[in-house]
Amino acid sequence: MGNMLIVHGGGPTAVMNSSLYGVIRAAKESGRVEHLYGAIGGTEAIFKENFVDLLAFSEEKLSLLLSTPASAIGSSRYPLEERDYKQMPEIFRKHRIEYVLLNGGNGTMDACGHIYRTCQEMGVKVLGIPKTIDNDIALTDHAPGYGSAARYIAATVHEIAQDVRALPIHVCVVEAMGRNAGWIAAASALARTQTDTAPDLIYLPERVFREEEFLRDVQNVYDRKGYVVVVASEGLADERGNSIVEPIYQTDRAVYYGDVSSHLAMLVIKKLGIKARSEKPGIAGRASIPWQSAVDREEAVHVGEFAVQSILAGENGKMVALVRKEALWYDIEYILVPVEQVMLFERKMPDEYINEKGNDVTDAFVKWCRPLTGEALPEFLNFRDYLDQK
Amino acid sequence: MGNMLIVHGGGPTAVMNSSLYGVIRAAKESGRVEHLYGAIGGTEAIFKENFVDLLAFSEEKLSLLLSTPASAIGSSRYPLEERDYKQMPEIFRKHRIEYVLLNGGNGTMDACGHIYRTCQEMGVKVLGIPKTIDNDIALTDHAPGYGSAARYIAATVHEIAQDVRALPIHVCVVEAMGRNAGWIAAASALARTQTDTAPDLIYLPERVFREEEFLRDVQNVYDRKGYVVVVASEGLADERGNSIVEPIYQTDRAVYYGDVSSHLAMLVIKKLGIKARSEKPGIAGRASIPWQSAVDREEAVHVGEFAVQSILAGENGKMVALVRKEALWYDIEYILVPVEQVMLFERKMPDEYINEKGNDVTDAFVKWCRPLTGEALPEFLNFRDYLDQK
Repeated sequence: MGNMLIVHGGGPTAVMNSSLYGVIRAAKESGRVEHLYGAIGGTEAIFKENFVDLLAFSEEKLSLLLSTPASAIGSSRYPLEERDYKQMPEIFRKHRIEYVLLNGGNGTMDACGHIYRTCQEMGVKVLGIPKTIDNDIALTDHAPGYGSAARYIAATVHEIAQDVRALPIHVCVVEAMGRNAGWIAAASALARTQTDTAPDLIYLPERVFREEEFLRDVQNVYDRKGYVVVVASEGLADERGNSIVEPIYQTDRAVYYGDVSSHLAMLVIKKLGIKARSEKPGIAGRASIPWQSAVDREEAVHVGEFAVQSILAGENGKMVALVRKEALWYDIEYILVPVEQVMLFERKMPDEYINEKGNDVTDAFVKWCRPLTGEALPEFLNFRDYLDQK
Repeated sequence: MGNMLIVHGGGPTAVMNSSLYGVIRAAKESGRVEHLYGAIGGTEAIFKENFVDLLAFSEEKLSLLLSTPASAIGSSRYPLEERDYKQMPEIFRKHRIEYVLLNGGNGTMDACGHIYRTCQEMGVKVLGIPKTIDNDIALTDHAPGYGSAARYIAATVHEIAQDVRALPIHVCVVEAMGRNAGWIAAASALARTQTDTAPDLIYLPERVFREEEFLRDVQNVYDRKGYVVVVASEGLADERGNSIVEPIYQTDRAVYYGDVSSHLAMLVIKKLGIKARSEKPGIAGRASIPWQSAVDREEAVHVGEFAVQSILAGENGKMVALVRKEALWYDIEYILVPVEQVMLFERKMPDEYINEKGNDVTDAFVKWCRPLTGEALPEFLNFRDYLDQK
């Protein structure tokens, strides 16, 4: 019986703990894992040897993982260096760790590849579990975490649209996470109903943002409907690739920008003279349990289980990936891909998912996205729909 | 059989439609209302005679109101003037409207008083239904809408705190609605658990905001815990009563400020050199159905029913109010108060609900607030709690 180590990296999701639940369950069921160590605090915890044995908890306690947001073992963005990797074999040997699982996004898969190479000689096996709200991991149809972030933005825009329509606030700009890829902002399209087109406009970082076109778009919708719901990615940039928001403050390590949503709302007020406001749920959108997608949660659990089964079967240097089967209904196959092929790519929205004007998504995107977000959003009653029919 | 008119005013809540449901149900059950007109679009709809008969809908359809955010008959912030009130008697006569219900906050209760006086001679009865997320209506223990806004901020901060603790982001500032009264920001205190003190700091508009004290508070918590969750009211002001955020833009009618939350996050970065970010759920916080408080929803329904029963019994010029009974358990009595006494006051947090330093609430507030927010928040599992015990 060997020991297993599970490490979380990067920003959390609403179902990262569901994958952890799957890992713990499969490790228990295998009967081949003596201690399953959770590294408490991401990759840094490996060097600090901050480990908790996850097999010591009751099933009742562990089932809370399915409805606990973020990461129950912590995470980090610690940038591992060559000397860090070199320390690992000794630590693994000391704790008799034979299997290492890393759950994370592109950065974590990079670390996964490095650990795989460093530990290849000593026989420690390494496998990656994909996770990202941004859906920017290559070689997988999507990654656990995205479906819930997508459901959150769709459901929240659906609710906000009721509010905007009721009062009306005129123009409301909702900011979506995803700095380099527009997958989350795009998913807000699922908020649309038979009677309301909100979100009326969606701006993605895959397209150059042009102020005059944005203002024309907003004015057009406003003239037609009397109110406008805009969803904007936090990463919008101009033709030179610069953020549309001026940098507010710069430190040695980072530049800090204002919020894209409040910038756009202010533009509407100043340039069009139309009342506008902005909302930025931010990390609330990746930590929401009520808007967790049941499909996403189930897939997250299964990805964790599959990783344990695969690594115990001798697989090494791979990442679990999801493949959508060619079928009339939504069906997923779980496979393994070489982790070193994952590391290098950041997956953006393909052209066929973005409309020609660059201010909306296409039906093909909605068709692709819908199954990931779980059951249909709640139906609302608005008597205004009946007045219009009069 | 007379006709009844129901009008919504001001910003919506998560349970405004629940009160509407109560109004429709009681009107149906009374057998004394021929048509129950919903004014589609707030007080302005009265002059446009934009009415929909709410008794024409099936019970199945109507039950959607309990889970529809905002206002299913719309709302407005239209500032009624003397000439507007003078038009009303003729419109009421034309549509044989004998009963008028207005659901809203302080501004709407002011309108309620004016309509009451204008229509007193012609025998039309007028009654007010309280509603506000801000909880700033006088003469009532609380108003429907507040309990759900309180539950939303508590639950969202509870979820965000898991995220901040997992990564950690260091300092996260969450902005709460409520420009003049801190009731919503205060309710975030209900996010606290046995193992986590987040939100660590709460800043309310009832207290002067002092930058140097805020920075000292943040540094202290950061030194102790390694991360800080701050909740700040959108209405924070300095000792001269000016917003702590510089005005960005001014029109003839209004001044536009930046967001308090991003302002505070930037202060932390610039002055303390600690990484910080901000979240502003904004109107998402008053439109959330998953975080609707069951207690709030039930009270909202009952307030609507009680208003109909009271007006049909001949009551006039009153507002429904909630009185908390002196009992060991939470129990509410519904009474009527003169609407003209409500109009004049904006209810703020009393001193005994704010701690001495002005950076938190007291236990007395938590005790007062907890029953309004419905059932306990979900329990989360964090293995870090078990590492600390080692």
